[in-house]
Amino acid sequence: MTFSIFFTPASLDKKNASPNPPALIYLSGLTCTDLNVVEKAGAARSAAAAGLALVAPDTSPRGEGVADDPAWDLGQGAGFYVDATQAPWLPHFRMASYITVDLIAALAAVGIDTGRLSIMGHSMGGHGALTLGLRHASLFHSVSAISPIASAPHCPWGVKALTAYLGPQAESSEAWAAADGAACVRTYAGPSRHILVDVGTGDEFLTAGQLLPERLTEAAAGNGDNVSVEVRMGEGYDHSYFLIATIIDDHVQHAAKALVKQ
Amino acid sequence: MTFSIFFTPASLDKKNASPNPPALIYLSGLTCTDLNVVEKAGAARSAAAAGLALVAPDTSPRGEGVADDPAWDLGQGAGFYVDATQAPWLPHFRMASYITVDLIAALAAVGIDTGRLSIMGHSMGGHGALTLGLRHASLFHSVSAISPIASAPHCPWGVKALTAYLGPQAESSEAWAAADGAACVRTYAGPSRHILVDVGTGDEFLTAGQLLPERLTEAAAGNGDNVSVEVRMGEGYDHSYFLIATIIDDHVQHAAKALVKQ
Repeated sequence: MTFSIFFTPASLDKKNASPNPPALIYLSGLTCTDLNVVEKAGAARSAAAAGLALVAPDTSPRGEGVADDPAWDLGQGAGFYVDATQAPWLPHFRMASYITVDLIAALAAVGIDTGRLSIMGHSMGGHGALTLGLRHASLFHSVSAISPIASAPHCPWGVKALTAYLGPQAESSEAWAAADGAACVRTYAGPSRHILVDVGTGDEFLTAGQLLPERLTEAAAGNGDNVSVEVRMGEGYDHSYFLIATIIDDHVQHAAKALVKQ
Repeated sequence: MTFSIFFTPASLDKKNASPNPPALIYLSGLTCTDLNVVEKAGAARSAAAAGLALVAPDTSPRGEGVADDPAWDLGQGAGFYVDATQAPWLPHFRMASYITVDLIAALAAVGIDTGRLSIMGHSMGGHGALTLGLRHASLFHSVSAISPIASAPHCPWGVKALTAYLGPQAESSEAWAAADGAACVRTYAGPSRHILVDVGTGDEFLTAGQLLPERLTEAAAGNGDNVSVEVRMGEGYDHSYFLIATIIDDHVQHAAKALVKQ
């Protein structure tokens, strides 16, 4: 498995975070590798200012011995941050365990303070951040998402992927619920979380019903006071990296508030 | 011809530059389109703060009716910012005229104040910025470059491209001199210019003798007081966009000093 880390250079480390900085884990979307966010988001400046490391994992296992599908929305590059239970995705497609166990161990080994982690993501990665971030609230001290697939069991991308990886919903309803961002908000019972979400009003996948951010605010309203969701609509932005580059600093700050003494 | 422009949103226009802002033209390197710098440089923030528009032209004409070469360092994506005089590159490959005439007219038509333009570039685009910026000093009020091909007639990329586009050096020595950044510094006789140049110490093309930035400082030393070149070496950076993203704000500021009342 591949991942990238940005460490704040010691010369810019005004928060004295090194050698054991806190980290914000960024989960990427369909077709991405670890490098898209590294090259396109422009997140390093505010991460350095805040004293955060940035961690960018790949979106699936890869390689010749790893199962794949000809479609871009299934298989390699499209792991959906779940642990697959179905052939041909076993044994490699265990992205939930990878992000919450193996990656954490790897981060500890390179000096990250794994007691201070936050998680965010874009599109499929926003789905990953919402589901893993809320189900593992003792591990991730804040959660945010950009253009997330907010309720995978209720959109075409999610139904296709979850059916393939987990089996039909009727046969694995618990696993499907765990892979539903909105459901994770509705049932959340951990420490207080304010979840920041950005979506573009011109996002073609919002119009196509793949994102469903309204389900997050509905779910938060149906839960108690310990979880709230703020959905901000970026006028005219589409699903691309321009929205990410414009508001990434707010998401870094969102994580920094939870991880760094202000 | 394709180009991209970033206009500062009115809501962020603290310099009151709209509706006729000054602009910094960014010339890209080999294989790039107009989009690489737009997606990877992270330049919009400081441009907005400075009240500059950013203009990113493509690196060559393109399309089915346009000549090309199987190699990535010649033909489409590799116009070298010269006006070709040789077959098969006529009539389309006239990038020097495109940047200094046609593009300027297009910018005026969309509201750019073409009396206030600066130019910069990366790699082949640094070569373009140095040669066009100094030869058209009344048009471009500042010049800077990142990892530039500083003296095209003296490096393998440049010799190949200039031979193809302009014919052998012995037969077109004047055209070759006009396409030599260091020679343009040496013979420069326009208004005072301080040229900012950044290069990475780990740049594989620096080691391979493609960039030759030392020829710029030598050329400035051989000229009078009206031109100086500051070459900054970025420790460990290679030829990629990581250097650009790290120091792009300094280049935007370099242009803003020449274009915007401070």
